[in-house]
Amino acid sequence: MANKYVYFFGANASEGNGTQKNLLGGKGANLAEMARRGFNVPPGFTITTEVCVEYYKNGKKFPKEVQPQIDAAVTKLEKALGKKFGDKKSPLLVAVRSGARESMPGMMDTILNLGLNDETVEALKAATGNGAFAYDCYRRFIQMYGDVVMGVQKKHENEEEPFEGVLHAVKHEAGVKLDNELDEKWLKELVKRYKELVKKFTGKSFPTDPRQQMQGAIEAVFKSWMNERAILYRNKYNIPAEWGTAVNVQAMVFGNMGENSATGVAFTRDPATGENIFYGEYLVNAQGEDVVAGVRTPNKIVDMAKDPNWASSYKELEAVRKKLEKEFGDVQDIEFTIENKRLFMLQTRNAKRTALAYVKIAHDMVKEGLMSPERAVESGDPEALNQLLQPIFDTAAYKAALTNGALMTVGLPAGPGAASGVLVFSAVKAEEVAATGKNVVLARIETSPEDLRGMIASQGILTARGGVSSHAALVARQMGKVCVAGAGEVEIDYEKGTLTVGSKTLKEGESISINGSTGEVFSGLIKTSPSELLQVLVTKTLDAKNSKLFQYYDFVMKLSDKYRKLGIRTNADQPDQASVAVSFGAEGVGLCRTEHMFFEGDRIDSVREMILFAEEHAKYKELVGEANGDEARLAELAKEYKDAIAHFTGALAKLLPIQQKDFEGLFEAMAGRPVTVRYLDPPLHEFLPATKAQKEDLAKKLGVSLERIEALGHSLHESNPMLGHRGCRLGIVYPEISEMQSRAIFRAALAVAKKTGKKVVPEIMIPLVGFEKELELQLAIVHRVAAEEFKAAGTKLQYLVGTMIEIPRAALTASEIAKHAQFFSFGTNDLTQTTLGMSRDDSGKFLPFYNKIEITKANPFAAIDQSGVGRLMKLAIEGGQATRPDIKLGICGEHGGEPTSVKFCHDIGLKYVSCSPYRVPVARLAAGQAGLAELKKAKASVAAAKAPVAKKATVKKAVKPVAKKAVKKVAKKK
Amino acid sequence: MANKYVYFFGANASEGNGTQKNLLGGKGANLAEMARRGFNVPPGFTITTEVCVEYYKNGKKFPKEVQPQIDAAVTKLEKALGKKFGDKKSPLLVAVRSGARESMPGMMDTILNLGLNDETVEALKAATGNGAFAYDCYRRFIQMYGDVVMGVQKKHENEEEPFEGVLHAVKHEAGVKLDNELDEKWLKELVKRYKELVKKFTGKSFPTDPRQQMQGAIEAVFKSWMNERAILYRNKYNIPAEWGTAVNVQAMVFGNMGENSATGVAFTRDPATGENIFYGEYLVNAQGEDVVAGVRTPNKIVDMAKDPNWASSYKELEAVRKKLEKEFGDVQDIEFTIENKRLFMLQTRNAKRTALAYVKIAHDMVKEGLMSPERAVESGDPEALNQLLQPIFDTAAYKAALTNGALMTVGLPAGPGAASGVLVFSAVKAEEVAATGKNVVLARIETSPEDLRGMIASQGILTARGGVSSHAALVARQMGKVCVAGAGEVEIDYEKGTLTVGSKTLKEGESISINGSTGEVFSGLIKTSPSELLQVLVTKTLDAKNSKLFQYYDFVMKLSDKYRKLGIRTNADQPDQASVAVSFGAEGVGLCRTEHMFFEGDRIDSVREMILFAEEHAKYKELVGEANGDEARLAELAKEYKDAIAHFTGALAKLLPIQQKDFEGLFEAMAGRPVTVRYLDPPLHEFLPATKAQKEDLAKKLGVSLERIEALGHSLHESNPMLGHRGCRLGIVYPEISEMQSRAIFRAALAVAKKTGKKVVPEIMIPLVGFEKELELQLAIVHRVAAEEFKAAGTKLQYLVGTMIEIPRAALTASEIAKHAQFFSFGTNDLTQTTLGMSRDDSGKFLPFYNKIEITKANPFAAIDQSGVGRLMKLAIEGGQATRPDIKLGICGEHGGEPTSVKFCHDIGLKYVSCSPYRVPVARLAAGQAGLAELKKAKASVAAAKAPVAKKATVKKAVKPVAKKAVKKVAKKK
Repeated sequence: MANKYVYFFGANASEGNGTQKNLLGGKGANLAEMARRGFNVPPGFTITTEVCVEYYKNGKKFPKEVQPQIDAAVTKLEKALGKKFGDKKSPLLVAVRSGARESMPGMMDTILNLGLNDETVEALKAATGNGAFAYDCYRRFIQMYGDVVMGVQKKHENEEEPFEGVLHAVKHEAGVKLDNELDEKWLKELVKRYKELVKKFTGKSFPTDPRQQMQGAIEAVFKSWMNERAILYRNKYNIPAEWGTAVNVQAMVFGNMGENSATGVAFTRDPATGENIFYGEYLVNAQGEDVVAGVRTPNKIVDMAKDPNWASSYKELEAVRKKLEKEFGDVQDIEFTIENKRLFMLQTRNAKRTALAYVKIAHDMVKEGLMSPERAVESGDPEALNQLLQPIFDTAAYKAALTNGALMTVGLPAGPGAASGVLVFSAVKAEEVAATGKNVVLARIETSPEDLRGMIASQGILTARGGVSSHAALVARQMGKVCVAGAGEVEIDYEKGTLTVGSKTLKEGESISINGSTGEVFSGLIKTSPSELLQVLVTKTLDAKNSKLFQYYDFVMKLSDKYRKLGIRTNADQPDQASVAVSFGAEGVGLCRTEHMFFEGDRIDSVREMILFAEEHAKYKELVGEANGDEARLAELAKEYKDAIAHFTGALAKLLPIQQKDFEGLFEAMAGRPVTVRYLDPPLHEFLPATKAQKEDLAKKLGVSLERIEALGHSLHESNPMLGHRGCRLGIVYPEISEMQSRAIFRAALAVAKKTGKKVVPEIMIPLVGFEKELELQLAIVHRVAAEEFKAAGTKLQYLVGTMIEIPRAALTASEIAKHAQFFSFGTNDLTQTTLGMSRDDSGKFLPFYNKIEITKANPFAAIDQSGVGRLMKLAIEGGQATRPDIKLGICGEHGGEPTSVKFCHDIGLKYVSCSPYRVPVARLAAGQAGLAELKKAKASVAAAKAPVAKKATVKKAVKPVAKKAVKKVAKKK
Repeated sequence: MANKYVYFFGANASEGNGTQKNLLGGKGANLAEMARRGFNVPPGFTITTEVCVEYYKNGKKFPKEVQPQIDAAVTKLEKALGKKFGDKKSPLLVAVRSGARESMPGMMDTILNLGLNDETVEALKAATGNGAFAYDCYRRFIQMYGDVVMGVQKKHENEEEPFEGVLHAVKHEAGVKLDNELDEKWLKELVKRYKELVKKFTGKSFPTDPRQQMQGAIEAVFKSWMNERAILYRNKYNIPAEWGTAVNVQAMVFGNMGENSATGVAFTRDPATGENIFYGEYLVNAQGEDVVAGVRTPNKIVDMAKDPNWASSYKELEAVRKKLEKEFGDVQDIEFTIENKRLFMLQTRNAKRTALAYVKIAHDMVKEGLMSPERAVESGDPEALNQLLQPIFDTAAYKAALTNGALMTVGLPAGPGAASGVLVFSAVKAEEVAATGKNVVLARIETSPEDLRGMIASQGILTARGGVSSHAALVARQMGKVCVAGAGEVEIDYEKGTLTVGSKTLKEGESISINGSTGEVFSGLIKTSPSELLQVLVTKTLDAKNSKLFQYYDFVMKLSDKYRKLGIRTNADQPDQASVAVSFGAEGVGLCRTEHMFFEGDRIDSVREMILFAEEHAKYKELVGEANGDEARLAELAKEYKDAIAHFTGALAKLLPIQQKDFEGLFEAMAGRPVTVRYLDPPLHEFLPATKAQKEDLAKKLGVSLERIEALGHSLHESNPMLGHRGCRLGIVYPEISEMQSRAIFRAALAVAKKTGKKVVPEIMIPLVGFEKELELQLAIVHRVAAEEFKAAGTKLQYLVGTMIEIPRAALTASEIAKHAQFFSFGTNDLTQTTLGMSRDDSGKFLPFYNKIEITKANPFAAIDQSGVGRLMKLAIEGGQATRPDIKLGICGEHGGEPTSVKFCHDIGLKYVSCSPYRVPVARLAAGQAGLAELKKAKASVAAAKAPVAKKATVKKAVKPVAKKAVKKVAKKK
């Protein structure tokens, strides 16, 4: 059987249905579905997305079978309507519209009134008795077709569109202001001049054959799939180019047939707030695009009821609105046309909505019995939940800033929300200004752990270098700070204390505002509004009872949890971060980066002391080994290395109780939930002092020469620190550090267990393992110290040991590594860098361009690269489970808070995802959606198994009412 | 059936044979085999290597079945000899020796005369009528056993060994100088004092029960497998710890039974030169270890013939020598003992030999019909062939330098051979000094492509930083230069012009010598001798006819080629390098790094000009794209970006003919052989000027400001350049560079094809591909330019396109990438760095330690990490072949010249390996060996298939004479 490329809809003969969005596009599928459900839809047909895919695969040629199928559909359409293409009495006119799997509003091209020529326009005039109307349609058609298919477009941004120019001239000559004031004579003149324009501009006559017109229009729609706007839109919303678009050819109905005709667009509820009001606009005597184009100011749809001429139509519409929500089980975004008081539905689709609207609608419609719990979970964009957490710019102030020249540049949106405050360039200054009670925006060329205190003190962070996974971005999201990263046009001069973009310079102390949701950087202050949700959950300044928003949010989250199988953990290094995460629903700590504790207070001095003498101490130990028990030699060595031993072991002894206290805080905050602690990871040079003053200070404190400290800096310098002496490689060469960390963990766990009476389950995680024996050696230390501490305490506790899988070799040799690991946690940040051979900090020079020309489908540092990194993850799981079937699997890379990645993690069988505290709601909803998707798939295959020999299901049967039927059995939460 | 852990040998009852080296160790297998072949071997038994493996696996416990099997073997031994352990009349005495799969001379422990105690020593005295002999045996036994099993050893390096101290005292009291001058009385006294020493030292009495003695000795041998010496040895020779060692328990025979007894070690030919002489030493009235220990000066074995008392024994030995070579088909390394004129063979094994001896022996013995061609190929160490290519230190001068304090430090042996000359610190100085005709050693902290000319001018290169795959090491090996890399103790001060190690400082202009085979760095000049082979093949100063060495070498290489399936290519950027490689047998260029050409002469200026304006030009192009054909805007842009366009395209225009000429040279040198050209790969900052003077010079030449050049330096700075903007990421962002390179290649190929009439087959290789579309986009440029150039030339030529597989994602998505690639070439340098997450330049801080404690089995930058990187390679091959079954597979990483990696490449089905020119002989022999190994395996399975229901083959049958039977059918070369 030949491929079916064309699907008819309407006139009680719909071939497709609402489930076929992938094939028919959203618009096509919903038109078929609406027609099936008894809405009045002008008939037509859909050319499938497969045709688009084939078109591009075959060098912009259609499959042979397409044209005959189109011809057949046209014939069917002609029969259904009793009209004929090009007929001088009853001509068929159609609209040709794009319709991708996901709606891409305004991105692709539409052509209306197709089928008109000098003869059929007269037939239209005769049929309607309205010459002005007929010629208005004709001039619109020539304009759209001329623009879209024949390329009659302005060539410079500042020019007027050519057709507009002609229109203005004619209106001027006719002495009218509005388009619909032109009478038939002038519209005829306009048609004539438009045709002349086309001829002059393209050298070709405007086509008169309707079938030729249609061919051109269909191809133009397919071509528009690859226009720059569409590509940009796809990149932004992660829509793959491979999906293609469908084309819908639909009989025209006319909202511009006179004063009893109208056209409108509406939402069945307010998509910004979620309020249950009929929200939309209409225009009398107009065609669809007039409403959007803003040629005339449209009327609010609720005002229609007040107009005596339209009150009955409003009633009809209101009924449709109710029926739509009931039939489709969600808020709908519709287009309609009223032709001589007869209502036609041109489109319905699930409405896009803000996060605010999402939680309210989900809450309300489920309670109203209109929406299924499944749909309530499905219909949210997890990523958008961030909107609920972030302060935002006050709308009016923001609009003003965008237009008054305050916008300086746009960087990467790295931590959503809005921040406005005093510009500072150093952590010290940030704390200083913050202490005066002012809001602060910290601008750095890039940030390092040294800037942490400054970041904490700031409302917003702006960096000139680094990507959305850079240190600044990572920490910002972890702390829920607003962040704009990698604003490449920004030049920061620390010495002069200036931030410059082009010719505009801000000095330290001046005001700056940043939008972490868009990347915008503004000079001056912009007023912000706070997030209600944070007031309830984090600052506790608002009682949950008094926050509707919180109730909606909580309702949705709990609904989502019913489908969720993935555990949600958080990446938190401090008790307060952990507590925030728990209030969002985190069930454990998936990653505590011990080294983030190293910078607090004076402890950094001890860290530096430890580093300064580590190498010498290791040398001492090597020589001790070679001495082979010779006591004289040992005494000699002890004397020779006295200083190094004293400093190194002394520093560790100082750090031990500090680390212990840190862990105690974390264990207490998590109150019995599991806590995964990663051992020291970053290269040691990250801890060294940067400025000369700091170095001199350290030299004085430790009683060593400045030269020695500088020499250490050189000796620790690495060409590629990302691939250098870090992770467990430190613990292997300096096992005393791992020993100290182990001791701190077990002492803390024992102390907290004793104090609180709650279970404490440390999960000890060795980073950057690549070789089985690395893990074996590090775990030998862990187990030895555990035994020692348990013996000393006279009690034991349960603990797990495992490793991060963050370099490809670990994934490839997972079966060996799993011999020693009770769990794997995927460190997808580093795993992405190594698997792609791409440093996230250096990718700014090419990765944006890669996304633009679609080499990469999405930013691999934000969403897991499933075919590369994802394949490695699957190999690691296979290997790990082969050795240890019950191995615990999780992820602690930043991807753990990104919805598509969460879904992937669910699909490959992870037990939990871990993400920064403020992304917990995102992960939680995404995980619920993933669980739901699995459940639906399972149900579908159960259904398929129950009817193994069923014939192709009748379409009616295949479409079950989505709403009302609440899911009775949901996946049990694990 | 219980595992068989103990194998009897000798007394016509050998259970093992010579093929069982893995199980019985080399010594055990060969003892069994010698006995089977009628040599006179004292009987005994071998405890298998499996026992050693189990011993360590089970926390140093033996499997239960072992002891009963030992007991049974002892009983069998007692019966065969008519002696009994501990018997007062006829006591059984045994030697206990280690014996690993591969010989590890001197690394593990041996105990002789086991079974003696105060009673059995008297029986021995009675049986031999020689009290002095009996007590000599006894005191030797106590000393060895006390040392090895009971730990009676000195505790400080400067002390005397405790037993030696007692011995000296007794000799002093007895008034004798040599051990064998002690009479029975004094020997008895010595035994007494030795026992007292043991008691005093250990608190335990010396054990008197022979079976207890044996248990202790066996365990001591197994323990010695993990002593420090043994571990170091294994690391050096890549012997896995998992192999374990066997233990051989053998009836004693006595070379110290009087003047008719002797002991000796010998080689059937000279293992240093390969000459056909009986090469070895013997001692009358001595036990085995005396010969090695140097207590007395042994006699040359050839002198035995001249001694009337020993002439007949010599004849017997000479016959054994001939029979051994005939039976074993190779030069043998033997140990023998003559007990009362009766010759016993204690060991035979294939002799280790120098590369010189290897080629001569292989040549001679094959011609003599003694050695099979297979063995001739197998018996060589490919790596050692480097010895034939490198100048070496004059032996006497080298010995002197090692002892006179000239040795300053030891770095990494990175380019084998010896170099001696004037110390310089810059490329300029190197050329300057070289121009005066002096030899030069260039010392740098690390080298960069800028140092290339200096490296060419030098005999040797010394760096303080960087590993064996650093730039210095890579280039040195490519050019056949001597190199010591990463000598961490060396401090180089460019400003002062000094090189310091500890307190010793050399100034520029002073003399220095380096040994690239060992890593040694010496102050002062050491005389060197040149390589004969290079005189024949490279400098052509010696005719092949006049070089025996060349003839031997050539014979072996051609023999190896008969088994070789892998093609051998070379990594060469210049015609002269390519020619050298061809003279060594290279069959093509596997990797031409185009950027290595960028530094020659003035062209670097054009390269820098291109880089300086690349980004601006890209911006211009982006704006042109956005202008969407608007001519006014285009004109505006062209004006605005006039300078950038002129500079960027001008620089490319200058580079085009230069690159073309380079390629012409290479294509001509390769005379029809395939040439793989890799497009621009390194990050652009590598090409920027480093010093202020250079920057100023460039600014002047290009008419731009110094600030601009410095700003570029900052803008191109990367955190991890290894993972940054390089490889095809450059060609994607700056497609004009790929276009220029394509044009240069095709113009050169067309020109050379026309000029020489020979086929030119460029293989175009896109580096660092990670995404299918990267390759697709770059190849679109290649194909377009090819079509343009073919059209312009009016002719076509064949070319291939492909990619390097050098980042994990490429391997993981190989099935997609193969849609566009006709070949894959594994870039295992970068693939190792990314797969292991380990920068080779930064690994110096931990990788040596990793090797020491056996986390890594070998340096992964030298030998392919088979379970990690190797697994990725296999995945890539699977994926590639799934899409394109005939995809051409090769390797161009440095591993392509390392023998175990060459074998791996053969085994996974690559078509060729490519390595630096001077490693071609190594790769060629290693590839021959790999082909041979496959052939033998195939033969073995054919044989197994022919006898599918054969019972366990009788041992006699399983051992076919290895020599004489030349292989008739060999694998056809591909």
